[in-house]
Amino acid sequence: MALSPRHEHLLDRLAEVAVRVGVNIAHGQQLLITAPLDAVPLVRRIAEHAYRAGASLVTPFYSDDVTTLARFHHAADDTLDTAADWLHEGMASAYRKGAARMAITGGNPVLLANEDAERVSRIGRAASKAGRPAMELITRFAINWNIVAFATPAWAAQVFPGVPEEEAVSRLWDAIFQASRVMVDDPVAEWKAHNAHLHKRATWLNEKRFAALHFTGPDTDLTVGLADGHAWAGGAEPAGNGIVCNPNIPTEEVFTTPHARKVSGTVRATKPLFHQGTLIDDIAVRFEEGRIVEAHASSGLDVLNRILDTDEGARRLGEVALVPASSPISASGILFRNTLFDENAASHIALGQSYAKCMLDTDSLTEAHLAEQGANTSFIHIDWMIGSSKIDVDAINHDGTREPLMRQGEWSNQP
Amino acid sequence: MALSPRHEHLLDRLAEVAVRVGVNIAHGQQLLITAPLDAVPLVRRIAEHAYRAGASLVTPFYSDDVTTLARFHHAADDTLDTAADWLHEGMASAYRKGAARMAITGGNPVLLANEDAERVSRIGRAASKAGRPAMELITRFAINWNIVAFATPAWAAQVFPGVPEEEAVSRLWDAIFQASRVMVDDPVAEWKAHNAHLHKRATWLNEKRFAALHFTGPDTDLTVGLADGHAWAGGAEPAGNGIVCNPNIPTEEVFTTPHARKVSGTVRATKPLFHQGTLIDDIAVRFEEGRIVEAHASSGLDVLNRILDTDEGARRLGEVALVPASSPISASGILFRNTLFDENAASHIALGQSYAKCMLDTDSLTEAHLAEQGANTSFIHIDWMIGSSKIDVDAINHDGTREPLMRQGEWSNQP
Repeated sequence: MALSPRHEHLLDRLAEVAVRVGVNIAHGQQLLITAPLDAVPLVRRIAEHAYRAGASLVTPFYSDDVTTLARFHHAADDTLDTAADWLHEGMASAYRKGAARMAITGGNPVLLANEDAERVSRIGRAASKAGRPAMELITRFAINWNIVAFATPAWAAQVFPGVPEEEAVSRLWDAIFQASRVMVDDPVAEWKAHNAHLHKRATWLNEKRFAALHFTGPDTDLTVGLADGHAWAGGAEPAGNGIVCNPNIPTEEVFTTPHARKVSGTVRATKPLFHQGTLIDDIAVRFEEGRIVEAHASSGLDVLNRILDTDEGARRLGEVALVPASSPISASGILFRNTLFDENAASHIALGQSYAKCMLDTDSLTEAHLAEQGANTSFIHIDWMIGSSKIDVDAINHDGTREPLMRQGEWSNQP
Repeated sequence: MALSPRHEHLLDRLAEVAVRVGVNIAHGQQLLITAPLDAVPLVRRIAEHAYRAGASLVTPFYSDDVTTLARFHHAADDTLDTAADWLHEGMASAYRKGAARMAITGGNPVLLANEDAERVSRIGRAASKAGRPAMELITRFAINWNIVAFATPAWAAQVFPGVPEEEAVSRLWDAIFQASRVMVDDPVAEWKAHNAHLHKRATWLNEKRFAALHFTGPDTDLTVGLADGHAWAGGAEPAGNGIVCNPNIPTEEVFTTPHARKVSGTVRATKPLFHQGTLIDDIAVRFEEGRIVEAHASSGLDVLNRILDTDEGARRLGEVALVPASSPISASGILFRNTLFDENAASHIALGQSYAKCMLDTDSLTEAHLAEQGANTSFIHIDWMIGSSKIDVDAINHDGTREPLMRQGEWSNQP
């Protein structure tokens, strides 16, 4: 589908922001890109900006929904536990040797909605396991990486159901460009200011050293203990390889590490979760000592239960993030059905692996020490939204005193 | 560009032949596919046929001319010796663990015609070197593999210059479907018969144990000694993993290993060579003791000289192949500007690496033994055409006696 000249111009800006602000490619670095086939026009622009910025080699990997579905429909049952381990090992090797990573999101959020749950689970599990060596480098923030979005027709049709394809795609592009902060005269300067704002908030939270967060609202009474030595992050940060990058475009969150054994109470999701092509709606869970002991969903419960059974860490939290209900993405009123956007429209928690950069002194601590302090380990890291304008958040100090952090989804204390 | 319903049907047959006859995928095997972006419709069909035939996972890698050229135009000089070694190592690892390989050819044959020769050479050399671990498995025929073609607009424009795009693509498809033997009621049976015919020819040549071939014609007086223990091959053959496959679709050749130190005389190419996006025309070379000591070309001489300087083995031969001038591809009268087709329209020789399957007792001989018998080693393997209806070929026996093998490009002795 042809873009309008205005959108072509904004697409080029998005590519420039992804390269200069997002991954912030260094001279001589290789860049690996994963993208849906529809995103060719963005990949081409990213490649050009990356080479201009000094990239040594840009290697795109395209995924194609038709080829993906062919496996679900035609592959023999005894072949479903196979994954491209050789490819993920190769990618991990590239990252270890200095390559940067870019992911373009925008695939059909319900691609696998009608597929057999058992096949979805087996194929997904094998892929997650094979992807572990590369994912470990990402979650550890060892390298500079970035995710940015492309408005595919399949995605736009889910966001704007019933709207003609061309209009739906155009509206989704407008929303992406707005949320990604490229609809201004100088997007790079805009991102600099936005990063400074998020840093200020994270610094304030880090100085506070809260013991826990308490979320209350409809069907929600959840206490999320924070890990000992937790560190709040938000906006651009230096990766382990020293390069300052913005992993997510857009980003509106400040986030940290919950204590994997100190989460208790109940919580209801405030937005549906779209995971590997499946919709999981109305999630409601109960935690005891950090572990989900009861889980409900009005649809996709089967998939949710399989996620929770992935491994020991999948029932525990690896991230808690605060986003005001007035964030620009939330203000757009659009349910994007894509985590990159929806998680930046609401406070959220993530099941599974925690981020090493969200712990103090990560480099000097062993895995065992980090686990002891409350960091979590898992093959998965799945965000889901628990914030809205109906949710209050209290911060709990180590002496048990409380202070209001958010009221009706907005910050109570400006840093 | 949309295909006609007739071409859609033939495309599906081509995919089926590529899967069942070409790579002959085994139950549980992974399949790696490299393809130009335009070839998505063929890749999708190949993926479906492969999954139906038992493939465990099909992983396509798409190349994109625009992204490729972005590097030539914008990358810094000090980054050009970089290649995706991690990817090629990953692919080689997949092959060693049992994966099969499919390559879809059809890119623009003169993509790099206007690029700086020094940049073309450096990027090409780095890529060849990085590709070595995977190429070694292919040339050693350790795994089942296949090349098949897709008629891209850029290729069609080169084959039928001045013809409107849609007509050029349609004519190229007709030629591909004809040459690939899918325009018959039962393509799989047709290929069975064709393979039997090529096997008969190769068996006859193997029984003869000729010492050398002598090519004569316009500007050509070339004696090609055959390696001690050379073996002729043609059509379907069992790969090292035991799977019988047809590496090339189409294929019309019988071929074997020349003696790397026993080639002498002069030869002029009968068709232009298109190598990594560059045209090399009117190649004329002189051999002494197996080595090219003088090389001319009316265009692309710079690239030819860089090829010859790749390594010690690049100036010596790794393959000699016989194809009658009446082969269906030759009879089409089309210069395809693509080696897969043009090499099956004329007898040819290849610079560089020899094929292990074209030596007897390969498995029991060391590399040093094979080299002693005349096998060649190089990073490259580049075929170029020396046959036509004006070329005669004599076979020379070990006692010096001769017999006519081909006259005016046709076989003199039917096996």
